[in-house]
Amino acid sequence: MTESRKIRWAEEVILPRGFRAAGAAAGLQREGHKDMALIVSEQPAVMAGVFTTNQVQAATVKLCRARLAGRTGRAVVINSGNANACTGAQGLQDAERMAQLTGELAGIPPDQVYVSSTGRIGIQLPMDKIEAGIRAAVPALSPEGGTDASLAIMTTDTRPKRITACFEVDGQPVTLAALAKGAGMIEPNMATMLAYLLTDAAVEADALQSCLSAAVETSFNRITVDGDRSTNDTVLFMANGLAGNRPLAPSHPDWKIFEHAVQALTLKLALKMVEDGEGVTKVVTVKVTGARTPQEAETAARSVANSLLVKTSWAGEYPNWGRVMDALGYSKARIEEDKVDIFYDQLPAAKRGLYAGTPIDDLKRVVRQKAFTLTIHLNLGPGETVVYTCNCTEEYVRINM
Amino acid sequence: MTESRKIRWAEEVILPRGFRAAGAAAGLQREGHKDMALIVSEQPAVMAGVFTTNQVQAATVKLCRARLAGRTGRAVVINSGNANACTGAQGLQDAERMAQLTGELAGIPPDQVYVSSTGRIGIQLPMDKIEAGIRAAVPALSPEGGTDASLAIMTTDTRPKRITACFEVDGQPVTLAALAKGAGMIEPNMATMLAYLLTDAAVEADALQSCLSAAVETSFNRITVDGDRSTNDTVLFMANGLAGNRPLAPSHPDWKIFEHAVQALTLKLALKMVEDGEGVTKVVTVKVTGARTPQEAETAARSVANSLLVKTSWAGEYPNWGRVMDALGYSKARIEEDKVDIFYDQLPAAKRGLYAGTPIDDLKRVVRQKAFTLTIHLNLGPGETVVYTCNCTEEYVRINM
Repeated sequence: MTESRKIRWAEEVILPRGFRAAGAAAGLQREGHKDMALIVSEQPAVMAGVFTTNQVQAATVKLCRARLAGRTGRAVVINSGNANACTGAQGLQDAERMAQLTGELAGIPPDQVYVSSTGRIGIQLPMDKIEAGIRAAVPALSPEGGTDASLAIMTTDTRPKRITACFEVDGQPVTLAALAKGAGMIEPNMATMLAYLLTDAAVEADALQSCLSAAVETSFNRITVDGDRSTNDTVLFMANGLAGNRPLAPSHPDWKIFEHAVQALTLKLALKMVEDGEGVTKVVTVKVTGARTPQEAETAARSVANSLLVKTSWAGEYPNWGRVMDALGYSKARIEEDKVDIFYDQLPAAKRGLYAGTPIDDLKRVVRQKAFTLTIHLNLGPGETVVYTCNCTEEYVRINM
Repeated sequence: MTESRKIRWAEEVILPRGFRAAGAAAGLQREGHKDMALIVSEQPAVMAGVFTTNQVQAATVKLCRARLAGRTGRAVVINSGNANACTGAQGLQDAERMAQLTGELAGIPPDQVYVSSTGRIGIQLPMDKIEAGIRAAVPALSPEGGTDASLAIMTTDTRPKRITACFEVDGQPVTLAALAKGAGMIEPNMATMLAYLLTDAAVEADALQSCLSAAVETSFNRITVDGDRSTNDTVLFMANGLAGNRPLAPSHPDWKIFEHAVQALTLKLALKMVEDGEGVTKVVTVKVTGARTPQEAETAARSVANSLLVKTSWAGEYPNWGRVMDALGYSKARIEEDKVDIFYDQLPAAKRGLYAGTPIDDLKRVVRQKAFTLTIHLNLGPGETVVYTCNCTEEYVRINM
């Protein structure tokens, strides 16, 4: 893509014009760990959002959905350590209180303040600590605060996820920055992951939402760590327009570069999440082609990507294509055993359902890598898909015990 | 049930009249481990069978399905260590050869010999070893050989699974014995598990099949260890009629006791499999009531029972009901968060979707037990089900690496 050459990337949060951020330690997680983050735009931003599809939804997700009706916002306040999920009316009240106090202290109408939480489910928020955290975060807001904010939203993450893209719109420099968290409990449809995209570009509200929705579909919804999906997943996108460009929409000549930047950025973030999956030491790209339909490709790919026996065999660095066949066979996708081809990177492991004869040591060399691609040709139709997943190690179990 | 009082149980294989069995070491597994089993009836037995629903099926499953058309059989030859799955035309030929050689040496028509395999997928059978194993097993056949056979079918099992029921039909003593294997890779619909039921009762062929199918539904299909399902699952039932009773069928006055014995025996075997699940230290009964339909109860129960986050929390002996809520929420079953009640044994953990206030230490005491029941009331309709599952430990990962 020519667009990709026009984008410069940085592995940090460079806040776009008009944004400030902060992180503070409120004592919700272990001593001294930052666990509250705040992001503020000096001007009202156009907002877009995508949320968990879980039927059980955190109070904060309910609040954000309601706020989004207005399509604008100026701030997001986030706590880690407590999910404020399964907390009923009290939880909703507490989420509103977080918005209200943040608004009061930062001089922003509370209905312009969005709220996110991540952590343990089913325990009421300790509001005294939360309030103290907000009181500490507001005065700490700074254009350099993106790093602190990215640290404050981590839970079981071993490293922060952040990235910034710089490119031009209408000849003006534009910044698109993102911070995110997510490690275990990651599956399609937005598992415990939080991601915040911030840009100074001006973007029309409908265009921003459809661009974000499409990007989530090809990034966060393509990754799976343990098949679980959380009650709190949230992606919010704030575009405050301070770059001064003519508002972006599909008819704008620079729409393609913006769209490409958003897609590339969300995919990069998603892969960072898989790499940092709980106990993960290996990232595996599972490609399925030749399914009868795209849906069946998806079903087949996820059956393989979520099979515990397949994931543990990767942990053992053994190219056990038989377990792949097994997982294909019990998926709801149509499979014809004697048509299936399986490749580890470029090496054939199975041809037409039978061992392809590639020396096991050669296949082992592929599986020993930090990252490889498992390609499955079902040879039944035009359906194809790709899913990003990981191995399952003893460490995963230890972390979640 | 009054029937249950008329049955005596033994935790061993007491072969019914006219059956002989043997186990032999053919070198398919580690040195000296018995890995071939043989079961023979001196008279043709009425046969019934239930097989894996995986679309990828072992050669031996295909052979058994074909044999079953005749409804009779005299022998089963079984190897462990190699699944003879994903082995194509050669695999089918090898399975036929196993039947043929067994028949030749034991003086049985080959079409009366059934074949099972369990072990690694995708590698052709080492037929020289297999043939040597058959040659060793046939002369070893004995009425006391059930124990050896039960040992020879084990793979990752840490202990053999065997059980015998004794009761009366038409005033005559009848024996119903079973041997089985199965540990990891156990899910609904008959995951890598093999089970052989043997009786000297006379049973009509249709009655035997429908009795077996119904019993599998309430036993083997109720257990789940890791959500994987295998290519080789097989349950075979042989009834050789040597007890001399009037053939059993639903109209027979003793049908109920026979039916009850089969159901109780298969459930006992199924629970032995969960208890011996790879790395398992805890058996959990998951009951769901109040789903809109029985299917939705099933979907909800399996979503919880197969959630890695739920299973690892049990390994950590923590009553994390929030993860249960999460798994319910992302299941395809309809859930209303504020109607869900969750109990650990008799203790309420959540009421109407909120923490029920039971001291965590009390809930922990339940989860610390070797076995407990998680009961979930969805309060939406009449659908209910029960599923038997287990925790997921680091040991599970180690075994499957």
